[in-house]
Amino acid sequence: MLLSVLQANAVVLDVEANLRTIEDAAIRAADAGADLLLTPELFPVGYAPLRVRDELDHASLPAIRERLAQIARRNRIALVYSLPAEAAGTQSWHISATLVDAAGTELLRYAKVHLFGDEERKAFVAAAQPPAVVDFNGVRTSLLICYDIEFPEAARAAAGRGAELLLVPTALSAGYEAVPQVLIRARALESQLNVAYANHCGSEDAYTFGGGSVVAGPDGGLLAEAGDAPELLFAQVGPDAVRAARDDVPYLRERRPDLYREWEAGMAPETGRPGDSTP
Amino acid sequence: MLLSVLQANAVVLDVEANLRTIEDAAIRAADAGADLLLTPELFPVGYAPLRVRDELDHASLPAIRERLAQIARRNRIALVYSLPAEAAGTQSWHISATLVDAAGTELLRYAKVHLFGDEERKAFVAAAQPPAVVDFNGVRTSLLICYDIEFPEAARAAAGRGAELLLVPTALSAGYEAVPQVLIRARALESQLNVAYANHCGSEDAYTFGGGSVVAGPDGGLLAEAGDAPELLFAQVGPDAVRAARDDVPYLRERRPDLYREWEAGMAPETGRPGDSTP
Repeated sequence: MLLSVLQANAVVLDVEANLRTIEDAAIRAADAGADLLLTPELFPVGYAPLRVRDELDHASLPAIRERLAQIARRNRIALVYSLPAEAAGTQSWHISATLVDAAGTELLRYAKVHLFGDEERKAFVAAAQPPAVVDFNGVRTSLLICYDIEFPEAARAAAGRGAELLLVPTALSAGYEAVPQVLIRARALESQLNVAYANHCGSEDAYTFGGGSVVAGPDGGLLAEAGDAPELLFAQVGPDAVRAARDDVPYLRERRPDLYREWEAGMAPETGRPGDSTP
Repeated sequence: MLLSVLQANAVVLDVEANLRTIEDAAIRAADAGADLLLTPELFPVGYAPLRVRDELDHASLPAIRERLAQIARRNRIALVYSLPAEAAGTQSWHISATLVDAAGTELLRYAKVHLFGDEERKAFVAAAQPPAVVDFNGVRTSLLICYDIEFPEAARAAAGRGAELLLVPTALSAGYEAVPQVLIRARALESQLNVAYANHCGSEDAYTFGGGSVVAGPDGGLLAEAGDAPELLFAQVGPDAVRAARDDVPYLRERRPDLYREWEAGMAPETGRPGDSTP
């Protein structure tokens, strides 16, 4: 399966401009034969958590979702987009990501579990559901969002549910290049799946994004890598490399989850203050 | 604290030669002002699990331990060494690692939880205790062995018990350079501690080792890195960089262990066969 990854600069709260950027990328990606286009975190509304909370007309979200489904349908390409989504039964909002197929039909939705920083925590609430997995074009596919993937436990939850491909919209500030260069490669290698990570670039309000979007393969190698400017990446991903990696070193089979559960109980909630660890 | 890391070639079952290699390194490391010398997995006996099981006189192990303590005392340098250790109440053996201080006093012992490959599993039994943590020269220090560190859960268990420095004897075959270059850096970055990883180089019986020993800092950067030949690495490690990293991005505080425990229950024991993952 040919994957495309959009790295671009969004305009805060200019939904029209941002949907145009996504549609332009969808046209180019579909022309190149891509099956799916991955876009960055909150791209249709721009990454500005408090302004999105306060100034976005949340009643417009279903219409924005429908227009994104139309972009998928019109260009016959599956799409992963990220938007605020109502936290069921509350007045609060999650940061969500949605996979729609080339007919615009929703296949998967995920809400961010690890919120990053004070502004996100003021504007959104953290979700609690693990990433689900669907079969997409013969590849078992799952979603995480930004800070989630920096925690190995989140990628493990997807891998343990069968994921062979993790699609990750992100909004990573400049200066944290070790995240795509080290952590994304490690997630792919230790859980032996493909990871695609789509970042913003340029500035949006107070934030400056470093780009550096990547696609990592199940051996930890980089299949594609962006600089700090707008770019459309392409990478072939599929279950064959995943199977080969898992046959070579069976990390997932050789985990010891019963021990991990016990060990977790002995961990201090905040490190620096040691737990009961005398040898 | 100045750390030294020995990368060297052992001679299978030639304890005299291997102890000489360790003592030579201890002399050089102490001359350079190092506080501690980390040596590779099973180095005093050589890495050949079945031959070590069948041909080593296990009654000689206490004397080998005493000679390693003497090397520490004679050179006034702390030492991490790795040897077989009896699994309590059984006729079986763990692969263990031991930290002795510059007086030769044992501070910490750890037994390997994740055995690698058929030969290790035939020759040894896997342990189940999490890595403990001790204060060594003002740095909270813990031990893992080889394959253990490839599992993020093992490094988390040490970090959650307060570790600021993980010392890891290893025997990593050539061709797996992504382990030190990607996974070790990721363990350091995601759990924000220092990780030192000491490998064999050259051939020992059927095994060829790639060297590539590293010391990674809590920002995921490499503080020292070896090629594929014998080498003594040095790196300054301490709690200040650990604190700075944990203040910048509080990964350990922002973990969601209650969710991870729940999520683990929904994971398929062997991936490839998906769990109950319909969205």
